[in-house]
Amino acid sequence: MAYVVDFRSDTVTKPCADMRKAMFEAEVGDDVWGDDPTVKKLEETMAKMLKKDAALFVPSGTMSNLLAILAHCQGRGEEVLLGDQSHIMLYEQGGIAQFAGVNPRTLVNKPDGTFDLQDAKSKIRMEDIHYPRTRAICIENTHNAAGGKVVPIEFIQKVRELADSHSLQVHLDGARIMNAAVAMDVTPDTIAQYCDSVSVCLSKGLGAPVGSCLVGSKEFIKRAHRHRKALGGGMRQVGILAAAGLVALEKGIPRLKTDHENAKLLAQGVIDLKCPSVTCDLAATETNMVYLMMGEGVSAKLFYLLCGTVTEGEEQELGQGIQVQLCPVSDTCLRVAIHHHITAEHIAMALKKIAYVDKLFQSGEAAKHLPKN
Amino acid sequence: MAYVVDFRSDTVTKPCADMRKAMFEAEVGDDVWGDDPTVKKLEETMAKMLKKDAALFVPSGTMSNLLAILAHCQGRGEEVLLGDQSHIMLYEQGGIAQFAGVNPRTLVNKPDGTFDLQDAKSKIRMEDIHYPRTRAICIENTHNAAGGKVVPIEFIQKVRELADSHSLQVHLDGARIMNAAVAMDVTPDTIAQYCDSVSVCLSKGLGAPVGSCLVGSKEFIKRAHRHRKALGGGMRQVGILAAAGLVALEKGIPRLKTDHENAKLLAQGVIDLKCPSVTCDLAATETNMVYLMMGEGVSAKLFYLLCGTVTEGEEQELGQGIQVQLCPVSDTCLRVAIHHHITAEHIAMALKKIAYVDKLFQSGEAAKHLPKN
Amino acid sequence: MAYVVDFRSDTVTKPCADMRKAMFEAEVGDDVWGDDPTVKKLEETMAKMLKKDAALFVPSGTMSNLLAILAHCQGRGEEVLLGDQSHIMLYEQGGIAQFAGVNPRTLVNKPDGTFDLQDAKSKIRMEDIHYPRTRAICIENTHNAAGGKVVPIEFIQKVRELADSHSLQVHLDGARIMNAAVAMDVTPDTIAQYCDSVSVCLSKGLGAPVGSCLVGSKEFIKRAHRHRKALGGGMRQVGILAAAGLVALEKGIPRLKTDHENAKLLAQGVIDLKCPSVTCDLAATETNMVYLMMGEGVSAKLFYLLCGTVTEGEEQELGQGIQVQLCPVSDTCLRVAIHHHITAEHIAMALKKIAYVDKLFQSGEAAKHLPKN
Amino acid sequence: MAYVVDFRSDTVTKPCADMRKAMFEAEVGDDVWGDDPTVKKLEETMAKMLKKDAALFVPSGTMSNLLAILAHCQGRGEEVLLGDQSHIMLYEQGGIAQFAGVNPRTLVNKPDGTFDLQDAKSKIRMEDIHYPRTRAICIENTHNAAGGKVVPIEFIQKVRELADSHSLQVHLDGARIMNAAVAMDVTPDTIAQYCDSVSVCLSKGLGAPVGSCLVGSKEFIKRAHRHRKALGGGMRQVGILAAAGLVALEKGIPRLKTDHENAKLLAQGVIDLKCPSVTCDLAATETNMVYLMMGEGVSAKLFYLLCGTVTEGEEQELGQGIQVQLCPVSDTCLRVAIHHHITAEHIAMALKKIAYVDKLFQSGEAAKHLPKN
Repeated sequence: MAYVVDFRSDTVTKPCADMRKAMFEAEVGDDVWGDDPTVKKLEETMAKMLKKDAALFVPSGTMSNLLAILAHCQGRGEEVLLGDQSHIMLYEQGGIAQFAGVNPRTLVNKPDGTFDLQDAKSKIRMEDIHYPRTRAICIENTHNAAGGKVVPIEFIQKVRELADSHSLQVHLDGARIMNAAVAMDVTPDTIAQYCDSVSVCLSKGLGAPVGSCLVGSKEFIKRAHRHRKALGGGMRQVGILAAAGLVALEKGIPRLKTDHENAKLLAQGVIDLKCPSVTCDLAATETNMVYLMMGEGVSAKLFYLLCGTVTEGEEQELGQGIQVQLCPVSDTCLRVAIHHHITAEHIAMALKKIAYVDKLFQSGEAAKHLPKN
Repeated sequence: MAYVVDFRSDTVTKPCADMRKAMFEAEVGDDVWGDDPTVKKLEETMAKMLKKDAALFVPSGTMSNLLAILAHCQGRGEEVLLGDQSHIMLYEQGGIAQFAGVNPRTLVNKPDGTFDLQDAKSKIRMEDIHYPRTRAICIENTHNAAGGKVVPIEFIQKVRELADSHSLQVHLDGARIMNAAVAMDVTPDTIAQYCDSVSVCLSKGLGAPVGSCLVGSKEFIKRAHRHRKALGGGMRQVGILAAAGLVALEKGIPRLKTDHENAKLLAQGVIDLKCPSVTCDLAATETNMVYLMMGEGVSAKLFYLLCGTVTEGEEQELGQGIQVQLCPVSDTCLRVAIHHHITAEHIAMALKKIAYVDKLFQSGEAAKHLPKN
Repeated sequence: MAYVVDFRSDTVTKPCADMRKAMFEAEVGDDVWGDDPTVKKLEETMAKMLKKDAALFVPSGTMSNLLAILAHCQGRGEEVLLGDQSHIMLYEQGGIAQFAGVNPRTLVNKPDGTFDLQDAKSKIRMEDIHYPRTRAICIENTHNAAGGKVVPIEFIQKVRELADSHSLQVHLDGARIMNAAVAMDVTPDTIAQYCDSVSVCLSKGLGAPVGSCLVGSKEFIKRAHRHRKALGGGMRQVGILAAAGLVALEKGIPRLKTDHENAKLLAQGVIDLKCPSVTCDLAATETNMVYLMMGEGVSAKLFYLLCGTVTEGEEQELGQGIQVQLCPVSDTCLRVAIHHHITAEHIAMALKKIAYVDKLFQSGEAAKHLPKN
Repeated sequence: MAYVVDFRSDTVTKPCADMRKAMFEAEVGDDVWGDDPTVKKLEETMAKMLKKDAALFVPSGTMSNLLAILAHCQGRGEEVLLGDQSHIMLYEQGGIAQFAGVNPRTLVNKPDGTFDLQDAKSKIRMEDIHYPRTRAICIENTHNAAGGKVVPIEFIQKVRELADSHSLQVHLDGARIMNAAVAMDVTPDTIAQYCDSVSVCLSKGLGAPVGSCLVGSKEFIKRAHRHRKALGGGMRQVGILAAAGLVALEKGIPRLKTDHENAKLLAQGVIDLKCPSVTCDLAATETNMVYLMMGEGVSAKLFYLLCGTVTEGEEQELGQGIQVQLCPVSDTCLRVAIHHHITAEHIAMALKKIAYVDKLFQSGEAAKHLPKN
């Protein structure tokens, strides 16, 4: 059996014993009838944590973001501003156009996950029948496609000011807002205070098996609740999952610091390997993600395949097959996501494998080491 | 403390000990990455049970039906035929128009949940730019708004023939298909064989806390899987819930017979009361629902309120307050839904309360007995 | 050359000399910039005629109805009540679901174009997350699928009352409102007064080449104007067409009386033929449409084909080939639409042909007389 | 009376005498029934001119583009690539998201109206449930927001190659394709050959009062025809307008050369004025548009207002009030659109006014010269 290091995503974690127990014991009811005390407790806890009026438990971050747009854009011919590298734009199947009929107007994301505020301002529409109506600005923190970068409070504050001066809403895709808060050493409400709505994932770094919360004003959550029903996101005795979510909030947030340290550990480790075929940027490793940047002429796809499989001859060489599962980002970059299942040993083993794969590249015959079948 | 009989819906059941245990022990993985063995097992079990190629676990029956329509109607300007009393038309917020852009063309439902096939045939559109394209016929079994009636196999077979002769798909909203199968004493695939897709709820009579399965061909489920992602219905370590779903399939189906017997017990009990203000139709009580039909001049709303609360003077009269929670259907009808938490004692207590409420109506001063606050 | 009687639709008329002249001389401008005086004049004239605040010129009745629904239903998850035999439901490709995401909830149309008001009332939704929100009731006058029947003022008045008691809008598909007004000998505003919006076609009985007007409050028309732009219905120097529309309003309305008389003339003529294969209902012939009802065993499709072509042997028999072009309605019914190109001679010739086709049916060999090619 | 120079848009032209005559004499029929010979002739002429199979006459360029997207993107969860400065993205109210549910993925437009092809390639989606499916690449020629720039054939050819290598469609918003063809001195099919569909406006530089044509394969146009009906763009005796369209194709294309010359004349004139407050780029003036670029510290809005009105004191100074109507583009730029109503005299008068407005700016008291009311 190969030694497996699962760096694919922080969504892959399995519920810890505390969560299993909490789910086992959870007091539940039919949440469609408003009868589930554990769901209510989770929603209240989350709202309080972000200092907002209300929260809604939903099956996924994708639904949470879709509901936010549905609930912010209540009319016809509306538009939102969002980063061209945002999760909503890149990874949610164009749902806001597909199901909400909302036009996504993109702003070029900078490498740090922010965008130019002057550009944003210039894209806010005047009232004119040729134009959709701009309703909201969406931001993301931490920013996934920027490699888990923390978007600074100052930027969010300025987005808020811009939004206010044009009567726009601000939605934060805070799938990993807790990573951002931990990295900045602030409470999450410090970030959320500048946003009308926040989507928070429980099933990423926080480790819950399923679910996200959408947070905002009472009226906003009431609308989102109605839209959730129409999408089919209303669930019955879902306090089972909410119970794990409560544990995630309690136990998962402190653990994130370790994830961030492990990410730095890995980045530093890769740098120390001084491999020609792959390197890292320690300074850019702000939270739980590490970008492996390919060296000149190194195919990210081949690197990915070699890392993810036990290559020909590897067992002899390393004493054991090691599979390091990564997430492809581009032709020159692979993503590592650290999560609470990842230990120092995993990182050591991963570095061992990366060094080995580098050697294959140096030999000029990397491709030949892919398993035959 | 009042004695509570919860007849509101068969969705209100809490997971049994077996389910709690199964959830506690469930082997899980990230189902978005295809890694959850328990979800796979549930989907395979469900597909096998209905003798279809594939199944998809989803958060709710509403999403299951919406996905079915999205996956059957892949083009623009399309239409489905469905009963005007179908759950899709009545209780799913018009989601198929709202999100799928599909036109619902209704057929008048008969009291038995069927519709006129000649009428259906006449409503299938020819190709013409003035018309949407008819893509599917939707049926429902058991039929909720018909009071849990079992739609006969012969009817479904004829729907299939009609569909085949016009190249249409047949979708079955089988939220309670297991009730139908049990009532007809057939295997569920006997019903499903005439349908291209079936939506089955685990969280109604079968007792699982959350979830439904959509079942159909491989290609159909592949499309539905894609649409589920866009709606935000893809979940991570959701094997937790699937584990309960597997127990529901194993333990829940045999239990349904008792539910149906309890429904008849209640209906007969109401009949035996010979109350002027309320009666039942025993023959119409085919599965787990009982319709309480108001007598001449009796307000269903008032009856509902009096049943659902401990009325003034009730404790003295009955020795104990009894709350019988019902579901309003119309001005003249209230629905009882039997589920596996309901025992013979609950039914006896409910009959006691119903008889008492009838007496209040006979006194001509029923309204006065509503609690003051 | 065959003698052709074009009974297909009242949309087939070609602009009269007055219209040609008016279009030739029309003062125009870019209406997207608000510069077309003729469009403005038409819109003002139409608004004044229906005693409403504002009007909007649009390319078609279909767009007019779609805009009305878009402008009445501004939110998400909304629904309109409308007749199951309404033009919107039958002949507009399900556009209100397809593009507006609005759920059509149908009421069974009676043969006179009305529907049961109690049924309508029972279908108005309460506020509940399971339900779409009912926003408007749509009626149609004259009612096309009812054979051009005039829907009585009393009915419309009651629809208004029902709507008011539930804060709903009333939209009138008045494609042929002028036929209704003429038949009832009232001004069109007598009908329109009970409606929030009216769609009026200029290119049906009134004889304009192109266009309809949507009429309503200033705010409503402002919204519709915005939606028209998005659909691509905004046109430039369209005063050309509006000029013909103005002539249609001036000259076309008085002419409708003759159309209605000609319809009765034809209906009476068919009755007088005493043909076994076809008959008419004089009382049901209220405006410019006549329904030809097939006798026992007579195929409407074959009757339609024989009328529409010069049959084998017809020229010898009748001295001249006659083509009577009809519109199919059902297996037992064909529609005649009278318009201002139809003269007494056309009617006489049509009756001649109908009598001849009847003879073919009596011979038992009707099908053999279809042309070979 | 002031002397008015209408530079707002090339859509403002009124039909010439030939068009008036052609409309007066046009042979027409009900085009919804396929009976209008003039519409057919226009569609055939247009298809032939672009060497495509079929064409469809529609009320506007906006509808033409919307139909193209509807007809190219037939499925759910689809996406198109298009310039962030394209007309579809900027000026069509987000209709492709709003009504077609299609996700617009933007490419940064360069000042010449092209975009980076490598960027385009990187944005084409792989098959994955997280992604919408890329269906088409949209280009625009001449490019409106680039100031009427001609997008070179070589670029279009490369877009075609990129599209082919990923099985994508290419749609050309050729609202002003004839300007592009004339400027490049090629036949329009030279451009269209690389595109699956082209939208051509008759009511811009070509001078027809209303209408555009969508051109493409037979199957594509058949789909678009169906979608046109649903949007309400199907019109009756619209041969009236098509007749003017035919004249536009015959007489309007040769006239464009003069428009382009006049644009250069104006640009050169502005340059020659050597005004500190406004200048032009002659080389960038490729077709019928001229961009007036404001000098340092000059407000485009104030310049626009002063040009568009008769300013205080102007009549004394210039002997006559002159209104030069412009179109605002940005804070630093105003657009002149030349069309066939514009003569050398107009240009001379416009230059006179521009010089006068410049003087006002030089005086430092420009704002004071706005009329008081």
